[in-house]
Amino acid sequence: MDRKIHLDENEMPDRWYNILPDLPEPLPPPLDPETNEPVKPEKLGAIFPKELIRQEMSDERYIRIPEEVLEIYRLWRPTPLIRATRLERYLKTPAKIYYKYEGVSPPGSHKPNTAVAQAYYNAKEGVERLTTETGAGQWGSALAFAANLFDMDCRVYMVKASYYQKPYRRVLMELWNAEVIPSPSNLTESGRRVLENDPDSPGSLGIAISEAVEDAVKDDGTNYSLGSVLNHVMLHQTIIGLEVKRQLEIAEESPDVMVGCVGGGSNFAGLVYPFIKDDGVEFIAVEPESCPTLTRGEYRYDFGDIAGFTPLLKMYTLGKDFIPPPIHAGGLRYHGDAPTLSLLVKSGIVEARAVPQIDTFRAGKIFAETEGVVPAPESTHAIKVVIDEALKAKKTGEEKTIVFNLSGHGHFDLKAYQDFMEGKLA
Amino acid sequence: MDRKIHLDENEMPDRWYNILPDLPEPLPPPLDPETNEPVKPEKLGAIFPKELIRQEMSDERYIRIPEEVLEIYRLWRPTPLIRATRLERYLKTPAKIYYKYEGVSPPGSHKPNTAVAQAYYNAKEGVERLTTETGAGQWGSALAFAANLFDMDCRVYMVKASYYQKPYRRVLMELWNAEVIPSPSNLTESGRRVLENDPDSPGSLGIAISEAVEDAVKDDGTNYSLGSVLNHVMLHQTIIGLEVKRQLEIAEESPDVMVGCVGGGSNFAGLVYPFIKDDGVEFIAVEPESCPTLTRGEYRYDFGDIAGFTPLLKMYTLGKDFIPPPIHAGGLRYHGDAPTLSLLVKSGIVEARAVPQIDTFRAGKIFAETEGVVPAPESTHAIKVVIDEALKAKKTGEEKTIVFNLSGHGHFDLKAYQDFMEGKLA
Repeated sequence: MDRKIHLDENEMPDRWYNILPDLPEPLPPPLDPETNEPVKPEKLGAIFPKELIRQEMSDERYIRIPEEVLEIYRLWRPTPLIRATRLERYLKTPAKIYYKYEGVSPPGSHKPNTAVAQAYYNAKEGVERLTTETGAGQWGSALAFAANLFDMDCRVYMVKASYYQKPYRRVLMELWNAEVIPSPSNLTESGRRVLENDPDSPGSLGIAISEAVEDAVKDDGTNYSLGSVLNHVMLHQTIIGLEVKRQLEIAEESPDVMVGCVGGGSNFAGLVYPFIKDDGVEFIAVEPESCPTLTRGEYRYDFGDIAGFTPLLKMYTLGKDFIPPPIHAGGLRYHGDAPTLSLLVKSGIVEARAVPQIDTFRAGKIFAETEGVVPAPESTHAIKVVIDEALKAKKTGEEKTIVFNLSGHGHFDLKAYQDFMEGKLA
Repeated sequence: MDRKIHLDENEMPDRWYNILPDLPEPLPPPLDPETNEPVKPEKLGAIFPKELIRQEMSDERYIRIPEEVLEIYRLWRPTPLIRATRLERYLKTPAKIYYKYEGVSPPGSHKPNTAVAQAYYNAKEGVERLTTETGAGQWGSALAFAANLFDMDCRVYMVKASYYQKPYRRVLMELWNAEVIPSPSNLTESGRRVLENDPDSPGSLGIAISEAVEDAVKDDGTNYSLGSVLNHVMLHQTIIGLEVKRQLEIAEESPDVMVGCVGGGSNFAGLVYPFIKDDGVEFIAVEPESCPTLTRGEYRYDFGDIAGFTPLLKMYTLGKDFIPPPIHAGGLRYHGDAPTLSLLVKSGIVEARAVPQIDTFRAGKIFAETEGVVPAPESTHAIKVVIDEALKAKKTGEEKTIVFNLSGHGHFDLKAYQDFMEGKLA
């Protein structure tokens, strides 16, 4: 058996899996903060194209992937499922460890799976410009990449601290012709309000979302794109798990444990949702101890952004004003979580675990030493728990099959590894 | 037909191709500078293991790849051959453009193809520590990666200017447990001599080679590794072209033009040598105008390093003391070239072309915009000529098949793209 389980391009799934009809109970709808009633699709039309609103609320189990999107997916998909034989040997575990490697996409993460779909539907409905926010830069570079492929303009509000600390993520977006604005900016009312109170504000994801949404609302030919949390984003990411299903069939394996890191939930959902109705699989969502949304947040309605522009979503939340400490896994610093994932955690179908940053970098270095790939700091959260589970299997002698999502590479995060190796991480 | 032409792991070639018996005339041997006679294998034994010396002089056409090396190759090989359909469409060319993508290796370039083989043979012969030099950092990180996999120590003398300008390549080497020393250093006599004359010397590849060789000569359990130029390095890289042969067969194509960039020659040789006896193929080696070794150098015996520690090699050279201007394609800043490639250029079998830096970045940006992948500045040299050839085919209406080697990704080179986009390149 090959180490890397390959699918040909024509074996790539041609539909996404929608979890909405398979949830253990109906998903509490997003509420309009002005009326406290379920938000009307028309209202979402100010910032989203019709087809994405339809997908957001659809009860069809499978949704066809348009040929134009498949064609772009083929630039890097199907991605490999890889047996981490060298890591297994290093851990001396009887467990089999497989990882789905999403870092092979041009922007280096799973994010383009939805960015390409969102850009496509927007372009198809005549939208000429997209706005979004980005923290660490993975989502912003994915949308820049996607918008460029459909000849759309793209403006990314990048959390100011990252804008200056991660100049190369910014250059990558500019290389794909996006305009990158440090947030808070004076281009929006939301930004100006923050700057009045704190001219040196380092920014946050919540502020940047407010700026991007405001920009899209005020400009007619412009829509807004979100990289996680919403149902249609989770939907587009299921291409990951649908491929893994086929790849595990080829390997004649079935998973016992599936692991992914969680910020808003999209890479985790992408891997896990297509398996959610399977018997006997343990699903583990891993988050940072410093932003413990699923493990210590409250399950209630909350805003997705700081200014309160978004609908209210029923989710685990640390409160919209929560500002997490500046850990290196920027993609996991969000106060809320996807409503679908929140419901699965609430129902006990998905287990959540929080891990300390320093342990995740230890795990990341072991992975780089044994398997070669340098993982993104976000992905090292999954690796930490995979190693824990593999060592547990060693104790019990169980030949468990563990599958995790290596959501992205860490080529733009070597400063973080440097801090780790120099003992600068708390 | 799939865009990406895939080989399964069991279709990976299990032997390298040695061009020595197929050269148009015998290769002038390396000379011992003390005697001006062909260097004795024993003398090379001070810094190289026996098996690599044997390969350096072998007249066997094929050399078996050890299973231990194949096992590590399988971490990322076979690499894909990809039809650049979006680039073709952008250029409106009737030419078909294929690229072999070596950037999928953990260090991000073709360099580990030889680093792994060299580390393996050294480890097998009991060597415990390797030294080498690196400029831009691609070779250094490849050897760090390889040495770590065989539990060997590794010390990399990194050109001082790069050490400070490219801290993340250094961190990558350290993540794989190598020791990285800014060169010139005071750890060697060669380094100290340079520093006495110029305490602020930014270093050069020639100086760093001298330091690494001296270190290996003086330390008993230590050998030296070279990332290009020598015959055994070219040999190990032929896995690239041997895979491409199989992939083109699958695609039912035969190449009309093959293109690669050239610093010392190893990625070009890797792609092209297995095709060198094929009829009707044009081979184009692309180098920077600012370091025009093949197009403006002399074909004569010269040293490989500045201190004159290496044997004399018959090659195109700009003189061992030539210090090229600080262009971004650090891997192409070498005063000499592989003797085998030099002979092929001399014989008219391979054509050499020099291109200006700014054109290469223009080509790189077009590639990133159309195909997604951000190419290393070295690889953009090949892309520039591929675009030229595709546009020529458009004029003549010829359906040429162009194949090139995309030797590495540019994730660690975004500063260079930034300078380009900000108009800072000459």
